[in-house]
Amino acid sequence: MHHLIETDPFRFDGTKRLKLKKQPHQVKDFYENKKDYKELLSEFHEELDELQSMMYAHNRYALLLVFQAMDAAGKDGTIQHVLSGVNPHGVFVRSFKKPSTLEIDHDFLWRTHFRIPSRGTIGIFNRSHYEEVLVTKVHPEILLESQRIPRSHTQNLDKVWKDRYEDIRNHERYLYNNGVHIVKFFLNLSRDEQRDRFLARIDTPAKNWKFSEADVKERAYWDDYQAAYEQAINETATPHAPWYVVPADDKKNMRLIVSQVILNHLNAMDIHYPKVSKERKKQFAQYREMLLKD
Amino acid sequence: MHHLIETDPFRFDGTKRLKLKKQPHQVKDFYENKKDYKELLSEFHEELDELQSMMYAHNRYALLLVFQAMDAAGKDGTIQHVLSGVNPHGVFVRSFKKPSTLEIDHDFLWRTHFRIPSRGTIGIFNRSHYEEVLVTKVHPEILLESQRIPRSHTQNLDKVWKDRYEDIRNHERYLYNNGVHIVKFFLNLSRDEQRDRFLARIDTPAKNWKFSEADVKERAYWDDYQAAYEQAINETATPHAPWYVVPADDKKNMRLIVSQVILNHLNAMDIHYPKVSKERKKQFAQYREMLLKD
Repeated sequence: MHHLIETDPFRFDGTKRLKLKKQPHQVKDFYENKKDYKELLSEFHEELDELQSMMYAHNRYALLLVFQAMDAAGKDGTIQHVLSGVNPHGVFVRSFKKPSTLEIDHDFLWRTHFRIPSRGTIGIFNRSHYEEVLVTKVHPEILLESQRIPRSHTQNLDKVWKDRYEDIRNHERYLYNNGVHIVKFFLNLSRDEQRDRFLARIDTPAKNWKFSEADVKERAYWDDYQAAYEQAINETATPHAPWYVVPADDKKNMRLIVSQVILNHLNAMDIHYPKVSKERKKQFAQYREMLLKD
Repeated sequence: MHHLIETDPFRFDGTKRLKLKKQPHQVKDFYENKKDYKELLSEFHEELDELQSMMYAHNRYALLLVFQAMDAAGKDGTIQHVLSGVNPHGVFVRSFKKPSTLEIDHDFLWRTHFRIPSRGTIGIFNRSHYEEVLVTKVHPEILLESQRIPRSHTQNLDKVWKDRYEDIRNHERYLYNNGVHIVKFFLNLSRDEQRDRFLARIDTPAKNWKFSEADVKERAYWDDYQAAYEQAINETATPHAPWYVVPADDKKNMRLIVSQVILNHLNAMDIHYPKVSKERKKQFAQYREMLLKD
């Protein structure tokens, strides 16, 4: 599925500024019908699996995929549908919910840094360190009451967010230089579509378990979240750790876009099966003979 | 033991440049005799234990003490003698030896960041992330062969060290802003004293277990290590994460200096027992009555 989808319109790497209000929540379909969609996704799975195997053998780079979104945007489903085709040896998902007491006893990058993917693997963060400039920014009482960072650093909240953006930029550049490539997705759901999906969670018995009062209450902060996302993305969009703002009102198109982005990044990485030296080839020939005589 | 020892001559926080050749390996005794030394150290233990209890109750700051030195400089003994008086609930030591295979599969700050002290505690690093700009710089084959960082970043080794100094500076400033205060010690042993201590490890049966051929071989790189230490210290000495270059040829004086430095830093931290509100005091009175009637 190389080059099927033009992903540049969704890419933010610092060369252009994001204005969330101007970003689409929907795109013209990349697929003709359901069968076509499934074929496209399955082609992608094959290619992704191949590239991941090579990455594992090469054992020098890691890929970190960060997923952020408003509630009901389809993070879980996207991760499931896009990455379930890959050998689970080489892929893991980490979900970051409300920090544990152990986590909150540490600096804010501690819990995600510890779970950064090791060489040769793909790590997926379902939510991430970005929560610390999103939910914590919308509800600063989290910072002030639970996080117990020094009071001298919470006198000026604007400076706290500015420092955190800078800390995240530094951290991500450092990781890139050490072989961890980072790609960040914001699944861009519209306010109306979120309402419809919450309603479906109430009206459809099989979806009832997903319904949460807290999500509906959080919806009251919609504009604050949009502003926080826009700023966080603009402050941390870099060529080595770009953001993709993906229209999320249609799940199938969203999954195809996400797939194409991952594939582009894997193809751009300098990965290959380790080269076999002449000497090693000679050894192979010897072992070959030995095994044939066995 | 407040103000007993003037620690400024040993402090490097970026305001003056370190020239290792000009730093002393020995000082005029701070104690009169062995008894006097023991009393001083024991006074220190008491004060340290008190301050640590307060820090634990306050539960907002952490203190990280980093110990680096040439072999046989007395890191282990200093940590043992200076910090064994403190409640072990609030203090832990982490020794960083040759990285494990799991550790080497990650970025170079991963293993130390994971072990950073949590709020309210004192963490001691026996060796640290600094090894990555010390032993790895003296033996760059470690970087090139074992660490598998991207080749594009190892073409220019000077840039690798420059990047690492910057990464460490950023990381330490970030930790400081999030409540982790860092104090770094270089125990400054002379080349002659190291020879004598190695000889003692050969000649004294009770010390034989400490003798290692590898240490003697590493001695051949003495000048390279001194240069690497000097540069690393100059590049990473900041007001919020200062270095102390402590004369190490006499162990007792070294321990007293280290003790004084730790005490100074704890005293300078804004720690106190959590204040009890008026409302809470009223509750206390009620519980008091309840317990008396019990």
